[in-house]
Amino acid sequence: MATSDPPLKDDLDIVIPTIRNLDFLEMWRPFFQPYHLIIIQDGDPSRIIKVPNGFDYELYNRNDINKILGPKASCISFKDSACRCFGYMISKKKYIFTIDDDCFVAKDPTGKDIDALSQHIRNLLHPSTPYFFNTLYDPFSDGADFVRGYPFSLREGIPTAVSHGLWLNIPDYDAPTQLVKPRERNNRYVDAVMTIPKGTLFPMCGMNLAFDRQLIGPAMYFGLMGDGQPIGRYDDMWAGWCVKVICDHLGFGIKTGLPYIWHSKASNPFVNLKKEYKGIFWQEEIIPFFQAAILPKECTTVQQCYVELSKQVKDKLGKIDPYFVKLGDAMITWIQAWDELNPIDAKKGNGK
Amino acid sequence: MATSDPPLKDDLDIVIPTIRNLDFLEMWRPFFQPYHLIIIQDGDPSRIIKVPNGFDYELYNRNDINKILGPKASCISFKDSACRCFGYMISKKKYIFTIDDDCFVAKDPTGKDIDALSQHIRNLLHPSTPYFFNTLYDPFSDGADFVRGYPFSLREGIPTAVSHGLWLNIPDYDAPTQLVKPRERNNRYVDAVMTIPKGTLFPMCGMNLAFDRQLIGPAMYFGLMGDGQPIGRYDDMWAGWCVKVICDHLGFGIKTGLPYIWHSKASNPFVNLKKEYKGIFWQEEIIPFFQAAILPKECTTVQQCYVELSKQVKDKLGKIDPYFVKLGDAMITWIQAWDELNPIDAKKGNGK
Repeated sequence: MATSDPPLKDDLDIVIPTIRNLDFLEMWRPFFQPYHLIIIQDGDPSRIIKVPNGFDYELYNRNDINKILGPKASCISFKDSACRCFGYMISKKKYIFTIDDDCFVAKDPTGKDIDALSQHIRNLLHPSTPYFFNTLYDPFSDGADFVRGYPFSLREGIPTAVSHGLWLNIPDYDAPTQLVKPRERNNRYVDAVMTIPKGTLFPMCGMNLAFDRQLIGPAMYFGLMGDGQPIGRYDDMWAGWCVKVICDHLGFGIKTGLPYIWHSKASNPFVNLKKEYKGIFWQEEIIPFFQAAILPKECTTVQQCYVELSKQVKDKLGKIDPYFVKLGDAMITWIQAWDELNPIDAKKGNGK
Repeated sequence: MATSDPPLKDDLDIVIPTIRNLDFLEMWRPFFQPYHLIIIQDGDPSRIIKVPNGFDYELYNRNDINKILGPKASCISFKDSACRCFGYMISKKKYIFTIDDDCFVAKDPTGKDIDALSQHIRNLLHPSTPYFFNTLYDPFSDGADFVRGYPFSLREGIPTAVSHGLWLNIPDYDAPTQLVKPRERNNRYVDAVMTIPKGTLFPMCGMNLAFDRQLIGPAMYFGLMGDGQPIGRYDDMWAGWCVKVICDHLGFGIKTGLPYIWHSKASNPFVNLKKEYKGIFWQEEIIPFFQAAILPKECTTVQQCYVELSKQVKDKLGKIDPYFVKLGDAMITWIQAWDELNPIDAKKGNGK
């Protein structure tokens, strides 16, 4: 894979949030070097982040974000990997791949290095099938198809907006599960990609994630987390719930499964518990909220859907905690900032 | 596995529909011999079906079915593997495993024989989680759990009613796909079990299927197929759609994935096309019907749900073809026959 022409070279940015030198890129060099990187430096902006030679990148620290967005920078989280979503906004490419800096190249069961990016691109370029379950998983995989009983009218599928990749070694567990199962490792290589059915929510992890920015970008907001906020580690979850509801409404698909990356390091479960504990309560009400959320037919763009959702968040989740009113406001600010950085092109449609 | 005590020995029957000698059982001997077999002989009742020595079985041919059910035997298909559902009705066990006689023992990627039955039992004995998608698949598998963001209130799960196993080698394709891809084989061993989300329909294949008869048995009717009917090869599909709607209503789960069997022989695509072609049209209306079907709260038993569904079938699908009126009537007959053979036990509830 590494030696062939990378697909979509000019259509994809890799977004990496970090607080440290990006030595992890050495391992990814054969796969990432052809692409442009957008590095979002979290924490102390005076710190120098070293990027290995030969990578094409732009780097934004907090000062850059404040300068570019002005007062609207308030919607971008600080001291939390949620800051990565600034990269989605500043990119001008059709596709985004985002990865954590403690994620390395995994090996498939034959011992071969997995080109995660190439699999994500494959997932995004093939249709999704959320309206009926295919028991042989992705019907567009090599050697697979739709099985007997799958309605023919649904086989064309719909555009894929999100490709959610998984993790070998350290699984993406919450703090309580980390505490209870400190030694658990994910060694199970499940050779499958599947569409998450319409109407079903899922926990979207931002560690190894690709999406079509033109289709769904404005909904990929990672919320208000970290510094000054009552919660952390729900940035990707929040984005996933919003994105799923909007994809279901607009007729876009979300896939999960392959590719795997190798997640090297478990974060500290005690620190995580502190960040998560309000979320553990709140999600019990957030999930039913998103399960019941209905967007009006008039919402035909991602921006319109997102603004409508922000109103429902303030109205219905604001009762749980004033934080959600603040979050609802930040969702609006995010859309305003997105539209500023991505002016509407009359020919192409909204913010593309 | 074969040498250890088989689990649920006295709680499970294996149901096999056939028209030939059951030589395929030799390969399954280490796994099936501890269990009781119910053999449903299809076609000519005067033919002698040979069963390898050492198996504990009862065999029913068409004459037996007619004798036992009298006029109600009309609900049991003839010259179609749909006849197998008579075995579900005549069994008195809690669990059923049904398998086709052209399915052999598959091997896992390490080359080890797969004890399909043992995996089905594992699937049935562990809860299902249809209300939220777990990206690491079955949270009850070894080395897996619920991932970050999975609501804690949903982690207890709900009882599992159905375990749908898959097929290596010959995939379960419809006639058009068989014709287009005559050489396609399924070589992909996907090491996963998952719950099919609530509200999502799936194509249930009867080739390698287990279920909890006490929970869902009366809905496992394989319809009117084959001799004298305008359609074939939709028996398991029909059952799957009914079962899914009823499981969603009653709060039972359906799992799909492991275990694999080795499907040895593709059936004739030309014969299949003849059997299927009306179904290929009809399913385009049947699927939306089941997707929209709502059962009233008052339906609290499988029987009540099934009778209600039969009315909706006659009312709404009867417009497509008079066949569905006949099928709706047969669904009622099936429930009557089920209740006759499985009298209600006041202590245990309905027909258990």
